[in-house]
Amino acid sequence: MAVIIDGKALAAEVDQDTKKQVDSLLKRGLEPHLVVILVGDNEASQIYVRNKSRRAEKLGIKSTVIKLDADTSEQDLLDQIEKLNTDDSVHAILVQMPLPDQINEFKVIETISPKKDADGFNPVNVGRLSAGQMDHTPVACTPKGIMKMLEKYQVNVDGKNVVVVGRSNIVGKPMSYLLLNANATVTVAHSHTANLKQLTKTADILVVAVGKTHFIKVQDIKDDAVVIDVGMDRDENGKLTGDVEFSSADKVASFITPVPKGVGPMTISMLMQQTVELAKWSKE
Amino acid sequence: MAVIIDGKALAAEVDQDTKKQVDSLLKRGLEPHLVVILVGDNEASQIYVRNKSRRAEKLGIKSTVIKLDADTSEQDLLDQIEKLNTDDSVHAILVQMPLPDQINEFKVIETISPKKDADGFNPVNVGRLSAGQMDHTPVACTPKGIMKMLEKYQVNVDGKNVVVVGRSNIVGKPMSYLLLNANATVTVAHSHTANLKQLTKTADILVVAVGKTHFIKVQDIKDDAVVIDVGMDRDENGKLTGDVEFSSADKVASFITPVPKGVGPMTISMLMQQTVELAKWSKE
Repeated sequence: MAVIIDGKALAAEVDQDTKKQVDSLLKRGLEPHLVVILVGDNEASQIYVRNKSRRAEKLGIKSTVIKLDADTSEQDLLDQIEKLNTDDSVHAILVQMPLPDQINEFKVIETISPKKDADGFNPVNVGRLSAGQMDHTPVACTPKGIMKMLEKYQVNVDGKNVVVVGRSNIVGKPMSYLLLNANATVTVAHSHTANLKQLTKTADILVVAVGKTHFIKVQDIKDDAVVIDVGMDRDENGKLTGDVEFSSADKVASFITPVPKGVGPMTISMLMQQTVELAKWSKE
Repeated sequence: MAVIIDGKALAAEVDQDTKKQVDSLLKRGLEPHLVVILVGDNEASQIYVRNKSRRAEKLGIKSTVIKLDADTSEQDLLDQIEKLNTDDSVHAILVQMPLPDQINEFKVIETISPKKDADGFNPVNVGRLSAGQMDHTPVACTPKGIMKMLEKYQVNVDGKNVVVVGRSNIVGKPMSYLLLNANATVTVAHSHTANLKQLTKTADILVVAVGKTHFIKVQDIKDDAVVIDVGMDRDENGKLTGDVEFSSADKVASFITPVPKGVGPMTISMLMQQTVELAKWSKE
């Protein structure tokens, strides 16, 4: 039976540490400040934004939510970001995705100052990550949280065969760069991959981020593999579940993340940690 | 017997096309201008720089070589780059690597304007490449040349298992991003990889960039694999040779690049093409 990686507990630990850092910054007169921009009224986005600002408040981080109408023009959004870029009281900016069709998401990402890039999606930061230049470089929070989990559970990554299923800019790609920087042998697989399930079965560490309920089953996993499930899917009963069939996979894996209480809770905790780091770096 | 990918002939084709484009730009009053900065007197670097400026001149591209002393300070070099960044008559800047110890290479790369980034090494451009945002994005010339070769020889990349051996910022990483963007399943292997030769034997397309003479031999290659050799090594007699033992590998590969006359000639041709592209883009 696999060791279950307790993302909820680890997230709480990270939060505790973040809270301490916030307290010490407040004493120095620096109040970390995260601004989240929400365009339109996507229901899931509203929940995500609310969770982020609640968590921020809980940790003593100032959070401001800017709500813009669904028909906001791209230029108006970019102007708004430019204003925040030059506002010294703002340390971290996050634009909640997805955005309405009239707005180019990549343009938005490029406009957020790399120094206030809460999500780590700006190409400058992605390029630095790619080059292994990690000093003062914010990184996508989900992969960052996964690295933290692997570290906490003392999973050795060096020289291991890692298969990352999914190649999004938010998870799969930055995940692969972090793992490569940590000396893993990394394969990025995706919808065009031939014999995908044969490939996943060769992985010492398997990261799955495809958004399909129970896409990976026990027979697709190597004995003693470490299985990281980034899925946040709904099963036929509307219950939150992952990309991996946990109930069977945990029989062969050595370590496995559950859904819920696995990768999910880590992401928001890493976002908070990163906000505090950005605030600190702004004074250096 | 493998089809030998003729890099020399293809490079000549690319040059011909570049020359045409230069001629048409000159008619419009735009003279593409590449500035190469050489710090110190590394012998190999001097040869590379000379080859680049000769090729530029041959194609009608203006080339300027700035030679700086080996003890040039980092700040002096950065100041020099900043001057070129704001000089409208300069379209492409290249700082020849390696640099003397007192100069941080990554700082230099970050200082070159992404819009004049002849080598495509600036993190902004790497991040755009990673995100598949290829519009007006310069890309590292060696991988760019390899993609051109694969295209010319109609090697289908989509869904293929590609193993890239070597993870440099100049070849391995940008190569993997280009291939992933083209829907290949990409594995990046390197010095920490366990059972490397077993892995290379699974590759439909094998790209080798490790800088070790005949590192890959016939038994490390899958039947009918496409083999791309980025090596520029010297054998025990001082003869230029590759990372792949060509004389045996060409018996099992379906396509293979020789050394010399393979990947090497393409790199400089892609640099010239990219210089012309940067000149064009500067007017858009």
